[in-house]
Amino acid sequence: MTTLAEAGAALAAESARYAGLGWMRGTSGNLSVVLDADPLRLAVTASGLDKAELTAADVVVVDRTGTAVPDQPRPDRAPSAEAGLHARIAEVSGAGAVVHVHALSPVLAAEYWPDGVELRDLEMLKGFGRAAHDDLVTVPVVPNGQDMRVLGDAFEAGYRADTPALLVARHGVYVWGADLTQARHRLECLEWLLRFTIERTRTR
Amino acid sequence: MTTLAEAGAALAAESARYAGLGWMRGTSGNLSVVLDADPLRLAVTASGLDKAELTAADVVVVDRTGTAVPDQPRPDRAPSAEAGLHARIAEVSGAGAVVHVHALSPVLAAEYWPDGVELRDLEMLKGFGRAAHDDLVTVPVVPNGQDMRVLGDAFEAGYRADTPALLVARHGVYVWGADLTQARHRLECLEWLLRFTIERTRTR
Amino acid sequence: MTTLAEAGAALAAESARYAGLGWMRGTSGNLSVVLDADPLRLAVTASGLDKAELTAADVVVVDRTGTAVPDQPRPDRAPSAEAGLHARIAEVSGAGAVVHVHALSPVLAAEYWPDGVELRDLEMLKGFGRAAHDDLVTVPVVPNGQDMRVLGDAFEAGYRADTPALLVARHGVYVWGADLTQARHRLECLEWLLRFTIERTRTR
Amino acid sequence: MTTLAEAGAALAAESARYAGLGWMRGTSGNLSVVLDADPLRLAVTASGLDKAELTAADVVVVDRTGTAVPDQPRPDRAPSAEAGLHARIAEVSGAGAVVHVHALSPVLAAEYWPDGVELRDLEMLKGFGRAAHDDLVTVPVVPNGQDMRVLGDAFEAGYRADTPALLVARHGVYVWGADLTQARHRLECLEWLLRFTIERTRTR
Repeated sequence: MTTLAEAGAALAAESARYAGLGWMRGTSGNLSVVLDADPLRLAVTASGLDKAELTAADVVVVDRTGTAVPDQPRPDRAPSAEAGLHARIAEVSGAGAVVHVHALSPVLAAEYWPDGVELRDLEMLKGFGRAAHDDLVTVPVVPNGQDMRVLGDAFEAGYRADTPALLVARHGVYVWGADLTQARHRLECLEWLLRFTIERTRTR
Repeated sequence: MTTLAEAGAALAAESARYAGLGWMRGTSGNLSVVLDADPLRLAVTASGLDKAELTAADVVVVDRTGTAVPDQPRPDRAPSAEAGLHARIAEVSGAGAVVHVHALSPVLAAEYWPDGVELRDLEMLKGFGRAAHDDLVTVPVVPNGQDMRVLGDAFEAGYRADTPALLVARHGVYVWGADLTQARHRLECLEWLLRFTIERTRTR
Repeated sequence: MTTLAEAGAALAAESARYAGLGWMRGTSGNLSVVLDADPLRLAVTASGLDKAELTAADVVVVDRTGTAVPDQPRPDRAPSAEAGLHARIAEVSGAGAVVHVHALSPVLAAEYWPDGVELRDLEMLKGFGRAAHDDLVTVPVVPNGQDMRVLGDAFEAGYRADTPALLVARHGVYVWGADLTQARHRLECLEWLLRFTIERTRTR
Repeated sequence: MTTLAEAGAALAAESARYAGLGWMRGTSGNLSVVLDADPLRLAVTASGLDKAELTAADVVVVDRTGTAVPDQPRPDRAPSAEAGLHARIAEVSGAGAVVHVHALSPVLAAEYWPDGVELRDLEMLKGFGRAAHDDLVTVPVVPNGQDMRVLGDAFEAGYRADTPALLVARHGVYVWGADLTQARHRLECLEWLLRFTIERTRTR
């Protein structure tokens, strides 16, 4: 996916897909793909728009700080405010795509296990890039904040190459991968795993 | 959105969208947009019709009391019985659109916190027009009733310009904004916030 | 709706709608409309077919006992096994349409309140044909069984003209009305009311 | 359904249907149909692809061990890793189709009742091929594992011809039938039954 038009079309389609799952309610969430690694350039979904209704042009190119670069397809479109965290995640992890949504179970899980959510011995962990047996996965949780550099530092402090996800308390989840498809598979598995874990640990 | 035909089309589309979320079951709920501020004229969805199946003509123009004015596109269509409350909300708040749905989580929240639902330190509050940190939002709850003037008075008594929502106990929720899109974003965020809060406070 | 073809088309469309809500899983449930009152003739959905995939021809005409009459549009189609209860309900209540689905909340409600489910002071009761205030609605529950005459007798014993619904324990719900649309509105409201009541009474 | 093209088309359509229910998140799950009984040949969905997006060519022919045979329509497509268990189930039960999905309620049920999930006196059991009254159905649960021969042995040890389902702990569910349609009806009923049972036994 090298051209901006292609990236925009892929981001619009993928956003509509997550919006259909109810994970991007009220214009929340954002998706990005890496256009270039050096200097880092990401195409990120524009801010404030319904994620089910994006067009290929509703995308903004940002640099490693999340700042919009000159020459945008839609100069009137602002990048997602969280673009800086997308860029940090891409830079540190080497990911080709970063997905951020506000699904409910990740946010509840972060609430119940603020020191990190532990998962192990679950088949769906394979879709998350880990093993189904004897592999303790801890999904890190960081406090919410509006300064993407602070969030980025918290992310980096707890970053493990084998754990492609981050929970932001009272906010949402970030999942990344080589491309939007791998990020999707990982996010779908993680959301399932968190929903299962929340239910399993509920008093019956 | 100045013409009635445009308003009707927008209301029909928006209603279908909420109906798709299951928030307008059994013909419940109603949406309105302000056509004129002085004298106040609202276009409100007609009563008794499935909200997924409205056409642009299924709209009634009402005055500030919620009474249908002469010269309707569909004289056989009655305005929503709750049009009077839509008008009061629009008049007091200056909103351009008012949305009323029967989503389950708002009604459960009103049941659990009949003195008002408190929300704070949640990212999704930004979509509700408030801050994500250190901003206590209290969504007012009023008792249900069939007299729109009584409901309107209760609404007005608890009205705060920074809190664009009202919970009616055992009934549903009203959310408003400058237009249907802003009202949608706010309602989607509020519904998410209430679902999260109900789950978070459940004994585990 | 007088012709069988019209009835079949309406039943197919309505079934697909309920199937879309997940209320007719595994071919469960059935819908009927009255073609003639005397002698009683109902068009009922055929048995064993996915309710999302019915055609207008997948309908069987039955008499007041639920037995298929001669001259069917599809002689290979068997009537729903529950057609006899549809007929009894139509005969006793005077309804023009009877809807039977296996939504989860009605069955759970019957489990929790086997002597009848009490509802009152809820706005959605208006969509069920009752009042929103000071009107105690009791939805009757009967034990499950395979003999439609036994079920029909149990239905008739507890029948009240102002309560157009019946819960069959460990099975599903029947709701009726003047036509499929009224039955739909009532069923949607009842299902919402039962979901609310189950949640409201859960220990928190 | 004798040709591979027909099988592929049916598998693709059926997979999309389950994916729409959210039961195949993150490429999880797989479906198969028997092409020949002796020697056993199954057409099984290819591995690693989104189950909502399969084409008729995304299918692999496997033998009784689950190994891909020569001459595939898509040599680049690998069979589902679980094909060996599909083949064992088909061989032992005589089923014409085997469906494996990762719906949440079956996995939760296996968690709560690891010695087998008991169901009885429920109308939906009829859709599962059992009786609605006085018929104790026990859905077996086996521990998860990556060796399909071990899983197959565990399946075979607890196999009963009148119970066309298997729960794999921390993983998912297998349901089978004469064809994909019967497997679908049985799976939909089982998933409903497990959801009901989990809810019914929750402390209130």
